[in-house]
Amino acid sequence: MVDKILMVICDGLGDRPVEALGHKTPLQSAFRPHLNNFAMGGACGIMDLIAPGIRPGSDTAHLALFGFDPYKVYTGRGPFEAMGVGMEVRPGDVALRCNFASVDDKLSIVDRRAGRIKEGTAELAKALDGWEYEGVKVYFKEGTEHRGVLLLRAPGLSPAISDGDPHEEGRKVPLVEPRAPDAALTARVVNAFVSRSHAILKDHPVNRQRVAAGLRPANIILPRGAGIMPHLPSWKDRFGMKAAAIAGVALVKGICRVTGMEVLEVKGATGGLDTDMNAKVEAAMKALRDNDLVFVNIKAADLCGHDGDHKTKTAVAARIDKAMGLLWKDFPEDTYLALAADHSTPCCVKDHTGDPVPLAIFGRGVRTDDVKTYDEIACARGGLGRLRGTDLLQVMLDLTERTEKFGA
Amino acid sequence: MVDKILMVICDGLGDRPVEALGHKTPLQSAFRPHLNNFAMGGACGIMDLIAPGIRPGSDTAHLALFGFDPYKVYTGRGPFEAMGVGMEVRPGDVALRCNFASVDDKLSIVDRRAGRIKEGTAELAKALDGWEYEGVKVYFKEGTEHRGVLLLRAPGLSPAISDGDPHEEGRKVPLVEPRAPDAALTARVVNAFVSRSHAILKDHPVNRQRVAAGLRPANIILPRGAGIMPHLPSWKDRFGMKAAAIAGVALVKGICRVTGMEVLEVKGATGGLDTDMNAKVEAAMKALRDNDLVFVNIKAADLCGHDGDHKTKTAVAARIDKAMGLLWKDFPEDTYLALAADHSTPCCVKDHTGDPVPLAIFGRGVRTDDVKTYDEIACARGGLGRLRGTDLLQVMLDLTERTEKFGA
Repeated sequence: MVDKILMVICDGLGDRPVEALGHKTPLQSAFRPHLNNFAMGGACGIMDLIAPGIRPGSDTAHLALFGFDPYKVYTGRGPFEAMGVGMEVRPGDVALRCNFASVDDKLSIVDRRAGRIKEGTAELAKALDGWEYEGVKVYFKEGTEHRGVLLLRAPGLSPAISDGDPHEEGRKVPLVEPRAPDAALTARVVNAFVSRSHAILKDHPVNRQRVAAGLRPANIILPRGAGIMPHLPSWKDRFGMKAAAIAGVALVKGICRVTGMEVLEVKGATGGLDTDMNAKVEAAMKALRDNDLVFVNIKAADLCGHDGDHKTKTAVAARIDKAMGLLWKDFPEDTYLALAADHSTPCCVKDHTGDPVPLAIFGRGVRTDDVKTYDEIACARGGLGRLRGTDLLQVMLDLTERTEKFGA
Repeated sequence: MVDKILMVICDGLGDRPVEALGHKTPLQSAFRPHLNNFAMGGACGIMDLIAPGIRPGSDTAHLALFGFDPYKVYTGRGPFEAMGVGMEVRPGDVALRCNFASVDDKLSIVDRRAGRIKEGTAELAKALDGWEYEGVKVYFKEGTEHRGVLLLRAPGLSPAISDGDPHEEGRKVPLVEPRAPDAALTARVVNAFVSRSHAILKDHPVNRQRVAAGLRPANIILPRGAGIMPHLPSWKDRFGMKAAAIAGVALVKGICRVTGMEVLEVKGATGGLDTDMNAKVEAAMKALRDNDLVFVNIKAADLCGHDGDHKTKTAVAARIDKAMGLLWKDFPEDTYLALAADHSTPCCVKDHTGDPVPLAIFGRGVRTDDVKTYDEIACARGGLGRLRGTDLLQVMLDLTERTEKFGA
């Protein structure tokens, strides 16, 4: 009977000392007896998801946590943006980041962000989504504000094309050019899509209303930054493992899916501040019964970091602790827990930073050190020292005896 | 006068907390005043021989300790298997792992392991060892049970050949095929050796006796996994150093030899549990007089780990301590000691694991930290942090002022 791996990743939990909290981090300020129990009984350390001082995106951080070198598999943001807006992305799909923009009759760009449009993009996107051209399936979905994602699906697509966005107003919408012989089809489809977007959007009711209200029309789509979704080997192919994931956020769910995890839907797990953390932890414990690895992402702390709200972040850490109490109470004997974050989101920066995250590994026989609390400062003195994101899975595979000896 | 380097590697000494030892590791449980003295007066840390979570073999670990990236120089197990059975291996030699197998008259494989033969293989191997074909010298030696090693020596050999083992019973012995133009000679020699092995072994007295006793004859050799011994630059060429090694185990001795170390024979240094550790340490101290670097491998702890015997492993650690007391008593002023292990072999796993090993560096002027004991847990809080195996030699070269400035 092989042991199991549970990864609990508290999104953006890492922070820096906050003056108003008596120079403690939100995590240090939170009542967290259960998190501390895992640290006290486990082996602790700090972890740079990518490398020291590198600010991880949620996408690259999760790729690293799943054992992939993001510098090798992160081939452009397009496919990950697509996942972020909730599109299904499959290996081989080419995706492009897009802007809703305003052009005049001669296709000169008046505003690259269509007057920073905020409403109506869902309707506009719906009019463009689901098309086929030269055998390529074309999908489009709106993102936040003026942003959107274009996704192409067919065998043999290449992302080696130039941008359809001159990044400058007053210029004409450029034709996309192939930069490699095998990218000719991709370029033709993108150009056809841009033409079609203008044809459909220019008289769309949403834009008529905008013009009537004195706003700029979102009458064309400008695509850029084409990327292809790499073929990532599955957990089964890599390690003979069955893996499941619990996450509320579309981007994280998407990455879990493309690495071959089953993404479990948990009622109340929203990915927002209101997320039901208890339900997530309970679902993870249940999923451990018939999976080799279970991954849980709890998003709420990151949102507080982006808002610069250390008070709510402290409260969120205490809520995470309470949920983890359910796991502590019935910790399965055959399981090794990795408790960490995917990056720091310090309230003073309001964005991801390269600060390392606290890590605790808990389970039978780990080298318990004398760290007594789970936080950014105490864990740095733990027995694991300072690890990289891609190391963590390897260490967990080793603890559960899934690794091969290198040599004899 | 340049300072000297002494590396003492306690094979497989690293472990995990053992419940029966009060949740201490065998090393933590051992009476070890001298090991502790080195830690207390030195700089401590933990070390991943290859990388976190990677299980090192003894071969790859020692390559790393000697400053070679095993991912670059470890080109197949054959040559290292040859060293492991005590064959002399030179750069350019091609070696193959082999099975003694049973075939019928039509060269169909009846048993890939010759009835798991245990005795008589030394005699059979002797009948095959020492031959020459097309100018290639051919050596063969038995390993444990049904295993053996074939070694070819000549200029211009290539290991790019297919296996002579179909890895399946009921099939014919396949001819080895070259996979590159320069491997034609190697393939011909291996094929000739396999034919010859059948011709010689089929009527060998050992096999006649086996057949008479109702056992399967070991009447052919099946070679696989060809590898070439890389040309490793010598200590002299790399650093202008004279290096000597003291080790009981054939594989470690072999690696020391191919890196250009003089392997010193020490009476009573067996590589087993009965090894005379005092004699090894005394010999090392003597060798320091006319060498720049002396390497000592003490094997016994690894054997206890493989046996899952934490009691004997604790006793072995205490014996290592006693032997190291001789060094402590007369520690040479001009020497820097690195005290570590080549990997962990936890009693609960009974095999090498990726757990890091404790490291202490002792010598004039090192940055003494507040670590008071030499063990897996305490050293993790030391001033060296967490290093890689290939880092250690570099650090020792730097302490002894043998490194060049990178830049100006």
